[in-house]
Amino acid sequence: MAKEVTNRKENYSQWYNDLVVKADLAEQSAVRGCMVIKPYGYAIWEKMQSILDGMFKATGVQNAYFPLFIPKSFFSREAEHVAGFAKECAVVTHHRLMNDPDGRGVIVDPDAKLEEELIVRPTSETIIWSVYKNWVKSWRDLPILCNQWCNVVRWEMRTRPFLRTSEFLWQEGHTAHATAEEAEAKANEMVKIYADFARNVMAMPVIVGHKSPNERFAGALDTLTIEAMMQDGKALQAGTSHFLGQNFAKSFDVQFANAEGKLEYVWATSWGVSTRLMGALIMAHGDDNGLVLPPALAPIQVVMVPIYKTEEERLKLISVFETVKKELEAAGHSVKIDGRDTLRPGFKFAEWELKGVPVRLAMGPRDLEEGTVEVARRDTLTKENMPVEGIASKVDALLDTIQQNIYDKALAGRDTLIRKCDSWEEFKTEIQKGGFLLCHWDGTTETEQAIKDETKATIRCIPIDSVVCEEEGKCIYSGKPSHRRVVFAISY
Amino acid sequence: MAKEVTNRKENYSQWYNDLVVKADLAEQSAVRGCMVIKPYGYAIWEKMQSILDGMFKATGVQNAYFPLFIPKSFFSREAEHVAGFAKECAVVTHHRLMNDPDGRGVIVDPDAKLEEELIVRPTSETIIWSVYKNWVKSWRDLPILCNQWCNVVRWEMRTRPFLRTSEFLWQEGHTAHATAEEAEAKANEMVKIYADFARNVMAMPVIVGHKSPNERFAGALDTLTIEAMMQDGKALQAGTSHFLGQNFAKSFDVQFANAEGKLEYVWATSWGVSTRLMGALIMAHGDDNGLVLPPALAPIQVVMVPIYKTEEERLKLISVFETVKKELEAAGHSVKIDGRDTLRPGFKFAEWELKGVPVRLAMGPRDLEEGTVEVARRDTLTKENMPVEGIASKVDALLDTIQQNIYDKALAGRDTLIRKCDSWEEFKTEIQKGGFLLCHWDGTTETEQAIKDETKATIRCIPIDSVVCEEEGKCIYSGKPSHRRVVFAISY
Repeated sequence: MAKEVTNRKENYSQWYNDLVVKADLAEQSAVRGCMVIKPYGYAIWEKMQSILDGMFKATGVQNAYFPLFIPKSFFSREAEHVAGFAKECAVVTHHRLMNDPDGRGVIVDPDAKLEEELIVRPTSETIIWSVYKNWVKSWRDLPILCNQWCNVVRWEMRTRPFLRTSEFLWQEGHTAHATAEEAEAKANEMVKIYADFARNVMAMPVIVGHKSPNERFAGALDTLTIEAMMQDGKALQAGTSHFLGQNFAKSFDVQFANAEGKLEYVWATSWGVSTRLMGALIMAHGDDNGLVLPPALAPIQVVMVPIYKTEEERLKLISVFETVKKELEAAGHSVKIDGRDTLRPGFKFAEWELKGVPVRLAMGPRDLEEGTVEVARRDTLTKENMPVEGIASKVDALLDTIQQNIYDKALAGRDTLIRKCDSWEEFKTEIQKGGFLLCHWDGTTETEQAIKDETKATIRCIPIDSVVCEEEGKCIYSGKPSHRRVVFAISY
Repeated sequence: MAKEVTNRKENYSQWYNDLVVKADLAEQSAVRGCMVIKPYGYAIWEKMQSILDGMFKATGVQNAYFPLFIPKSFFSREAEHVAGFAKECAVVTHHRLMNDPDGRGVIVDPDAKLEEELIVRPTSETIIWSVYKNWVKSWRDLPILCNQWCNVVRWEMRTRPFLRTSEFLWQEGHTAHATAEEAEAKANEMVKIYADFARNVMAMPVIVGHKSPNERFAGALDTLTIEAMMQDGKALQAGTSHFLGQNFAKSFDVQFANAEGKLEYVWATSWGVSTRLMGALIMAHGDDNGLVLPPALAPIQVVMVPIYKTEEERLKLISVFETVKKELEAAGHSVKIDGRDTLRPGFKFAEWELKGVPVRLAMGPRDLEEGTVEVARRDTLTKENMPVEGIASKVDALLDTIQQNIYDKALAGRDTLIRKCDSWEEFKTEIQKGGFLLCHWDGTTETEQAIKDETKATIRCIPIDSVVCEEEGKCIYSGKPSHRRVVFAISY
C-alpha cells in the first residue's frame, strides 16, 4: 500500500505535514527552517510561476534581477519599514573561510570582516528604490514596472513547510509612477490578478479587501490582500499588493521632472505571492487520501495504469495508452503512463491518489477485449467505464469539469464557514469554531488590538469583493457606530 | 543621437562595459560586486533559461530547489572540494538586527549569534548530497536527475558585469547514478547540450573537451568544458560538466542496495552554466555600434519605425505595421512598433542598433505610396527596399538567415584565431597575440604550471570535438613525447 496519511479530523496539522512529505512536495533540510522543494512540488510551483508570469507581462510588467544582499544602513532609511520589519534576518558579516590552524576543517577568517554588514533580502523595496533613483529623471521614464522571481530570507522562529519558512521563493513586483492615482490603480490591478489566479487557476475562493491600518505592510499607505479559508477554519493570507505612497521615494530621494519641469517624488507599489501558495493549495483541496490538484496546476494531469498478467497483455495495453497519450498531449495535457513492472496496480492507484493526479485511466485485458477503459476522478473519487474510442476528447472535457468542480466544492465549503456575528459574547465562542466572521468594527486600532488580545482573531480584510458588507451597525466590541462589516478570522 | 559606444580597437574592455550599460543590460549596485540585471538584459537571460530548461527536461531532468545556506561544517566534509574552492564566500553569523541604543538606525544584535555559521552557497554539491542521502535506498531510486535555477555567491575581489560577479544566477544540475559508466555518460550528454545551445542558440562556436587535471572542478574526476573565443583573442569558459566519481557520495555516506542487495556508493555528476553566458554573448557578436543579438535570443526580433510628418501619415504607417506585426507574431516572433512621438527616426535607429535588434523595418510616406518598406539587418548593417506585400514571410526567413550568418561570422573569426604552434619561443610571442594555440603537451601538471607562470596561458581543454588534435609530437615546453595537441589560450 502507499504511504498512510493522517486523517484530517484526527490531526489536521499532522495531515498537512504528511501530505507535504508523502506526496513528495518538500522536506526539511539540514538548515533550520529552510526546506528542500522536491521535483514534484517544484513542478507545481513552476506551473504557478509560468501562469502568473504571463499574467503580469500581459499588464506590461517586465522581469529584472536585483542583489540578494542589502547594506545594513539601507534598513535605517525608511523608518516605518524597519520598525515593522526586518529584525529577524540573516546577517552576512564575513567574506572568507580559512583552514582551521588546528586542522579541524574550516573556520571563518577573522581578518575578512565586512566594513558594513549585509542583510540577505527579506524583501527588496530598499535596494530597488536605491536603484530606481538612477533610472528616473523625467516623467518620460515612468512608469517603471518591474518584477523579480527570487528567494528571500526571514529568520522565522517557528516554521512550517511552505506556510512559514526562513527561506522562501516568491515574486516581488515594484512599480514607480508619476501620480498617486496611477500607483493606486496598479496596486488594485495586481491584487485582482492574484484573485483571478487564486480562483481560476488554483480553484481557490478568496475574499479581496484592504488590510486595516494595523495589518498593513511596513511603509505602506494601503495594503490589499486576498484571503483564503482553509478546511480547518483558519484564514490564510495568500497574496498582498501595497500602495506605498511616496515613502520609499522620499527615503531614497527618487524624484522626477514633471511635464512642467518641476521635481516631484515618485509614487510606488509593491506586490508579492510566494511558495506559501503551495501550502494554500494543499490545504484548500486535499482530502484524507492525499492531495487534490486542480488540473491547471497538476504536473501530471492524467495517469494511465495498465493491469496485466502477461507480457503480451502489457504490450497491448501500453500501445493503446500511447495512442491516447499522444492525443491528449496534442490537446496540451501532461500525461504519464505508469509502466513500472515491480509494483501492483493497487499500489499505483494509491500513490497517484496521494499525489493528487486529477484523472486516472486503468485498463485490463478484459477492457482490451471490450474496448473500454476505467476513468477515475480524483476530486470525487468516482469511477466510470467508458469506450476507448474517443476517450481523449472526453478526458479533455472532464479536466475542465474537474477544475470547475474543485472550485465549486471549495467555494461551498468556504461559504459554510462565513457568517455574520453581532454580539461580542457570540463572537468569542464562534471565532473558536473557525471560519470568517463578518462583524461591525468601530475602525480603531485599539478595538482591533483588544479583540486580537482576547481571541487571537485579526481583521483579515475590509472586503471590496466577494462578500457584501456595506450596512450600518454597531461595533461588536465597543458598540460604537460602524458603516460596514469587516472580516475577522484566526489565521495562519 | 543614441549613446556613444567606445571603439573595440581603442579599448576593448571599455567597449564591453559600454555595451552592458548603454544597451540597458545591467549596472552596478550599491553592493560590491553584485549587479542589477535590467529588464532588457534579463529578457535575454529568460530566453536562455527557457530554451536550456527545455533541453534539460527532454533528457529526463527535473527541477527542484535546495537551501541557499550551507552549514559551515559541510565544507569540511569533502576535503578536495573545500581545498580548491569555497574560501571566498559570504558568511552568515547572526540572525537579528536591533535598534541602535544610540538611536542611529539599526545594528546587529550581538545576542543573535548562530551556533554554526552558514555559508551562502557558492555551489550546492554539499547540501544536495546531504539531501540525496535521504532519497537513495536502493538501485530503484536511481538515477536522480535534478537541476536548480538559483543564485550563488562567490566573494570575488575583481568583478566585471556578467563575467565575474560576487552574486550570479545559474543552473546547477546534480545527478546520482548506480554506475560510473552511467554517470560519465550523463556528464558527456550535458556538455553536448551546452555545446548545442552555444552553437545553435547563441550562434557561438565552442570547442568541447576535457579540462586538464589541474583545471578540474574541486572534487571532480573529470571536468568537461565548452570553450569560446572572444573577439579580443581571449578564451572564455562558457559551461562545465563534471564527473564527480563517488567523492561526494562517500563524504555524505550515500549508498544504495544494488540488485544483489549489496551496498555501493552512488556515482555523481554536476554541470552548470551561468549569467556569464550573457557576457559571452555580448563579446562574441557585438560590434562598434552595439550589441548584435542572434534572433533565437533577441527579446525583440523585429522593430518597426514609422517615419512621418503628419498625424495622418503616422496613423497609416502604424496601421500597416500592425498588420505585419500580427503576421510575424503568428509565426512566433517578437515584434515592437516604436511609435514614440518625441524622438527622431535616426535616434531610434541608433538605439535599436545599440540594443542589437536583428531586423528593423522603416517606412515613410513615400514607401506607403509605393508599397515598399526598408529592411535593415543588424548583423550586416545592410538595407534593402522590399514590397510590403508578403514582407512577413520574407522577414521570417531572414531571421533564420541572420541566425546562421551570425554563427558563420563568429566561426570564421574564431577560426582565424586558432593555429598550431610547435616551438616554445614562438609560443611565447604568439600567445600574447591572442587566440587558441594547438600545442603538444607532455601531460604533466608541472609543465602546465610552468607555462602558466611564464605566459599566463592555461590549457583550455583537451579537445574531443571541433578541432582535430590526435597526432604524435613533442611537448612545446619540455620536449617530451605527446600523443595529441591540446588547446592553450589566455582566458577571461
